[in-house]
Amino acid sequence: MTAPRRIHLGLFLQGAGHHVSGWRHPEAESGSENLDLLRRVVQAAEAAKFDMVFLADGLTSGVDAHPSMIARFEPLTLLGALAMVTDRIGLAATASTTYGEPYHLARAFASVDHLSHGRAAWNIVTTSYARTANNFSKSHPEHDARYAIAEEFVDVVRGLWDSWADDAFPKDKARGVYADPGKVRVLDHAGTYYSVKGPLNIPRAPQGHPVLIQAGSSGPGQDLAARAADIVFTAQASLPEAQSFYRSLKARVAGFGRDPASVAVMPGFMPVVGRTLKEASETLRELDRWTDIASAMPLLEERIGHPLGAYDLDGPLPDLPLSDQLRSRAELLTELARREGLTIRQLALRVAAGRGHHIVLGTAADIADRMQEWFEGNAADGFNVMPPYFPGGFDAFVAEVVPILQERGLFRTEYEGTTLRDHLGIGRPAWPGA
Amino acid sequence: MTAPRRIHLGLFLQGAGHHVSGWRHPEAESGSENLDLLRRVVQAAEAAKFDMVFLADGLTSGVDAHPSMIARFEPLTLLGALAMVTDRIGLAATASTTYGEPYHLARAFASVDHLSHGRAAWNIVTTSYARTANNFSKSHPEHDARYAIAEEFVDVVRGLWDSWADDAFPKDKARGVYADPGKVRVLDHAGTYYSVKGPLNIPRAPQGHPVLIQAGSSGPGQDLAARAADIVFTAQASLPEAQSFYRSLKARVAGFGRDPASVAVMPGFMPVVGRTLKEASETLRELDRWTDIASAMPLLEERIGHPLGAYDLDGPLPDLPLSDQLRSRAELLTELARREGLTIRQLALRVAAGRGHHIVLGTAADIADRMQEWFEGNAADGFNVMPPYFPGGFDAFVAEVVPILQERGLFRTEYEGTTLRDHLGIGRPAWPGA
Ligand SMILES: Cc1cc2nc3c(=O)[nH]c(=O)nc-3n(C[C@H](O)[C@H](O)[C@H](O)COP(=O)(O)O)c2cc1C
Ligand SMILES: Cc1cc2nc3c(=O)[nH]c(=O)nc-3n(C[C@H](O)[C@H](O)[C@H](O)COP(=O)(O)O)c2cc1C
Repeated sequence: MTAPRRIHLGLFLQGAGHHVSGWRHPEAESGSENLDLLRRVVQAAEAAKFDMVFLADGLTSGVDAHPSMIARFEPLTLLGALAMVTDRIGLAATASTTYGEPYHLARAFASVDHLSHGRAAWNIVTTSYARTANNFSKSHPEHDARYAIAEEFVDVVRGLWDSWADDAFPKDKARGVYADPGKVRVLDHAGTYYSVKGPLNIPRAPQGHPVLIQAGSSGPGQDLAARAADIVFTAQASLPEAQSFYRSLKARVAGFGRDPASVAVMPGFMPVVGRTLKEASETLRELDRWTDIASAMPLLEERIGHPLGAYDLDGPLPDLPLSDQLRSRAELLTELARREGLTIRQLALRVAAGRGHHIVLGTAADIADRMQEWFEGNAADGFNVMPPYFPGGFDAFVAEVVPILQERGLFRTEYEGTTLRDHLGIGRPAWPGA
Repeated sequence: MTAPRRIHLGLFLQGAGHHVSGWRHPEAESGSENLDLLRRVVQAAEAAKFDMVFLADGLTSGVDAHPSMIARFEPLTLLGALAMVTDRIGLAATASTTYGEPYHLARAFASVDHLSHGRAAWNIVTTSYARTANNFSKSHPEHDARYAIAEEFVDVVRGLWDSWADDAFPKDKARGVYADPGKVRVLDHAGTYYSVKGPLNIPRAPQGHPVLIQAGSSGPGQDLAARAADIVFTAQASLPEAQSFYRSLKARVAGFGRDPASVAVMPGFMPVVGRTLKEASETLRELDRWTDIASAMPLLEERIGHPLGAYDLDGPLPDLPLSDQLRSRAELLTELARREGLTIRQLALRVAAGRGHHIVLGTAADIADRMQEWFEGNAADGFNVMPPYFPGGFDAFVAEVVPILQERGLFRTEYEGTTLRDHLGIGRPAWPGA
């Protein structure tokens, strides 16, 4: 008897809201330093039985950036704090393989897994934007090199997580044995990019390995996900594209000898809930009206990877070479503009609203229908929910959409386990031995 | 009217206790992953009105290490958690300038300062042990190079902390101004070791700058402290040495044009409390009896910086060239062995007990007397208290020694402010302008 397949839900948490003008909504509270807001929203997600809360991240800032990305908590310290005010919900943070050290990263995520008793997840990213290098005294590797580095980085991290057996610390007072010398595994990694000896200075994590999420949808990105990840976070604008990505990803998972059902594909998903479709559309239109085109253009340009100031805002997107930065997003947006015949201005507003992720307007039932359609149509195993503003934009989803999904048997009504692996229905990796 | 000078107290928190055999005490609970223990102990320190809790750190592990250092929480994520279960006590963590990036570090400490509403402190260390390099795909710089790097690293961190004015985020919904473009300061640092553009992606910290602690007592170490630190953590075995260090440090502070009273010198201090001196001595003797010389020797060797297996354990410490690793500690231990005529075995046991820090045995009154003597004798402005085991070894200090210090007017009976800077009586750095 196998459990019925269920939708997985993540709350994609951004202090100022996902819509670039979300913070201007009359009901919006905002701010990365607004711990009180973040805590309430995460507790609401836990009360609604979400699988996890998800923190994106970046390593640059500037007044031109999306308000949620100008200034925010450092994600791992925030997860440490959130671990203390929640009990069950998974805690996922983004960290880069291009601008970090495997030893620091392995340790910090294992630490959060201990603090939360088995709820940590690492969203593996390679960092899109070349300007990041300016903050780290180095130069930005090109797209495929970033993935080659990432492959090795992830292996080192997983190796370090296996430094100690689960029962390596008997703390036997009588015999005087704190750590058992037979239960340590020295990694001794010497690869192309990293030399890391180990062992890691923290006991093995409650989950064995914290959950791995991968965000990056190009070919090399999908391969990394298929080989190593438990969850794939992706941006998909339409059902057919999402289905095609889903098929491609699951085939690659099988290609690595893994069970396709063990990897959850979770596209971003922005719900705009109204009592009627008209009301929801009006909410989005209002947010769009507050969006200055001058603030929307940098968001489009960084995703397309080229300056667009020389082109007619009310003309079509020109043919441009595919950027090395956020390659899969540049493809998605180019395709979206072609398909819907959008002008540069319209595309910029779309990016300002949802950054290329799927936006759904309507009643709670309409939104639940769309989720069911994607879920049953093999376009998604779950969704990373992106409220346009906080907390109202999320409260409406929790109060109205979640109960419909539960009534339809598509989403849990109670947590069945205590760890994020339990929520996802995936096993705990055994210690490989000394 | 100036406030009377008061003792500052830190709780130096190590999961398995400070004495290498502390965890074997019948009343000891232990473990780096024992969040419940750490939480209770920190809450006890807060109830006793301590200035701060202090986390040391290291970036290696092995079964031969001190039990508190084999495996422990990553300090910044732990501080994030502790911020949520405390209200007033300062939260200090150690982080290395040799194995980190200024951008990551500036951000994480600012984040903890936000999470705790102004209670974060960074203990600046250069990392002693050369074996650390094996975990970071690089080689270990020599002693003075580590300090040259540290000087620049600290400047970059402080510069990044000034990225945004305190009122940089008006979040004016009507005018659509989230971040004020006139209130950002781009660092544009291009130095010998680092190129860091900025701005940092977090609002200015509640304390302006988190408090800076420096631990490293050689000449270059003292200079870094004198130029930049608010607190100096040091190991001092005896009163005359502590007085001489105190004089040297304060003179250097004045030499940098700073007020010597604005920098607090806080030696490590291991209290062993008994109902009588005899009982306290018996407690220490018992802990020492549980200490296997084979486990004590590596602790001595890593501090002296040389293998000692070739020498007679019951003979004197030979003359050895001063190590490049923990230079000030090697000096302290060499001097201690000479002064007290200790054999290698006796010195190893002393290191296993307190790692070279001052150990005080006696009744609560004896211990308070010693603190008063050091404080009034210009050997210390406060102490980083190192209980031999947890929680009992700390509970006794809180229950019996702290009230005596309070009765004598030497220690606060209530917090007067809310931030760590308030507790220390030091000002908040103003934003230097765009
Ligand atoms: C859905 C999604 C979310 C992402 N989130 C982040 C993020 O939070 N931080 C980041 O630095 N990069 C993020 N990335 C960027 C990727 O890690 C990667 O650098 C970039 O997408 C280029 O790889 P690709 O062409 O394989 O997508 C994200 C990418 C995708 C597709
Ligand atoms: C009291 C004290 C505490 C220290 N704590 C740490 C620590 O927690 N982690 C660490 O890596 N180094 C620590 N150090 C090492 C110093 O940062 C420095 O690398 C070492 O002491 C060599 O410098 P010195 O000769 O100036 O003391 C400590 C040093 C002292 C004196």
